[in-house]
Amino acid sequence: MPGTVEKKLADLGITLPTPAAPVANYVPFVRTGKLLIISGQLCFDADGKLVAKGKLGGGITIEDGVKAAHACAINLLAQVKSAMGDLDKVVRVVRLGGFINSAPSFVDGPKVMNGASDLMVTAFGDKGRHARTTIGVAVLPLDAAVEVEGAFEVS
Amino acid sequence: MPGTVEKKLADLGITLPTPAAPVANYVPFVRTGKLLIISGQLCFDADGKLVAKGKLGGGITIEDGVKAAHACAINLLAQVKSAMGDLDKVVRVVRLGGFINSAPSFVDGPKVMNGASDLMVTAFGDKGRHARTTIGVAVLPLDAAVEVEGAFEVS
Amino acid sequence: MPGTVEKKLADLGITLPTPAAPVANYVPFVRTGKLLIISGQLCFDADGKLVAKGKLGGGITIEDGVKAAHACAINLLAQVKSAMGDLDKVVRVVRLGGFINSAPSFVDGPKVMNGASDLMVTAFGDKGRHARTTIGVAVLPLDAAVEVEGAFEVS
Repeated sequence: MPGTVEKKLADLGITLPTPAAPVANYVPFVRTGKLLIISGQLCFDADGKLVAKGKLGGGITIEDGVKAAHACAINLLAQVKSAMGDLDKVVRVVRLGGFINSAPSFVDGPKVMNGASDLMVTAFGDKGRHARTTIGVAVLPLDAAVEVEGAFEVS
Repeated sequence: MPGTVEKKLADLGITLPTPAAPVANYVPFVRTGKLLIISGQLCFDADGKLVAKGKLGGGITIEDGVKAAHACAINLLAQVKSAMGDLDKVVRVVRLGGFINSAPSFVDGPKVMNGASDLMVTAFGDKGRHARTTIGVAVLPLDAAVEVEGAFEVS
Repeated sequence: MPGTVEKKLADLGITLPTPAAPVANYVPFVRTGKLLIISGQLCFDADGKLVAKGKLGGGITIEDGVKAAHACAINLLAQVKSAMGDLDKVVRVVRLGGFINSAPSFVDGPKVMNGASDLMVTAFGDKGRHARTTIGVAVLPLDAAVEVEGAFEVS
């Protein structure tokens, strides 16, 4: 049975994908105490295809970047569900780290990153408000436009 | 009444600005257990103007970068005060993450980041000595020269 | 007396260097609760020379990048030993952050970062499987090819 948070997302047409199995010597999440640390998630859609590939300020629009950040956030939630069984066990979204694949002149990373932050508040309400760091990086794995990592307090 | 740490800073001519209100779905800090996580702080001065704008190795000198990192650290402390009411509640500065807006040839990020680290030790003494990661990024929000995030153990 | 983990590494010909003393107002590690946070480690070898200097996708091969990431991981373990006295006190490798000095076109950061992840599993087995974030950065201190930071749960 999906919990309250997952039902809210379903009502908005957002379904959580089955997270991909790891292909190297790392894992998608580690719990330590009440902290759940999620590995950096690329902007894959439910079919495993990148929502946006390339650089902001170099072919990728802010609008597409927002969609990419939103996809990263969905993938974070899918990993949280995989770890905890139920998104309702999230006590607080503690921190998101947003990495924007950027041309050296692209200064609007925060607008892009809002695509991830907004989903957290959509899903969790005030508990979804998190600390955040957004930086523009030279490049990302597979040339993904956005990567987001997360830390969650869980019960 | 300002606490011991804030008095020490005042004696050095450092006053903490009122932190800006967040303008998106994230917050400047989240406490989880004894950890206080502060969002990435840009190098704004007390008037909300960037202390240095542009890239190290591309127009911004190391000296200006140090001032920018120092400003980021002041903003971190302002957020800690906002969260805890009193800087004296800091048990330990756990970690600073330093992001230097860098031309691809600029290899002196640590010298810049010392501007932030030094303030922590000025404020807190040995409790201010922290783990640190410094990287040179392609670009930062608003083209700020430096961004610093922090994690603090609090009582 | 070296512990089980260190003996396993020694059997593989891996000896932990004496970690360098910090030269600025930060420290190589901070423990807070059961978390041990290690500062970003550059790809120095046991003689204090960079294993690889320059950018992936700009002169440094993936093979050399893997060696560099492996060196960063050795330096992380050396700091853990310095902090805890014995690597056997590691309960879990929680997270590695991998920073790859990258030309803007280099999209294979994860392959490079496996050089660090693999050593954690070699050393700790399943306890070595960690959450991970890999990004391509514009530049690193001293033009090191790779920098890796780590968080460990310790007893």
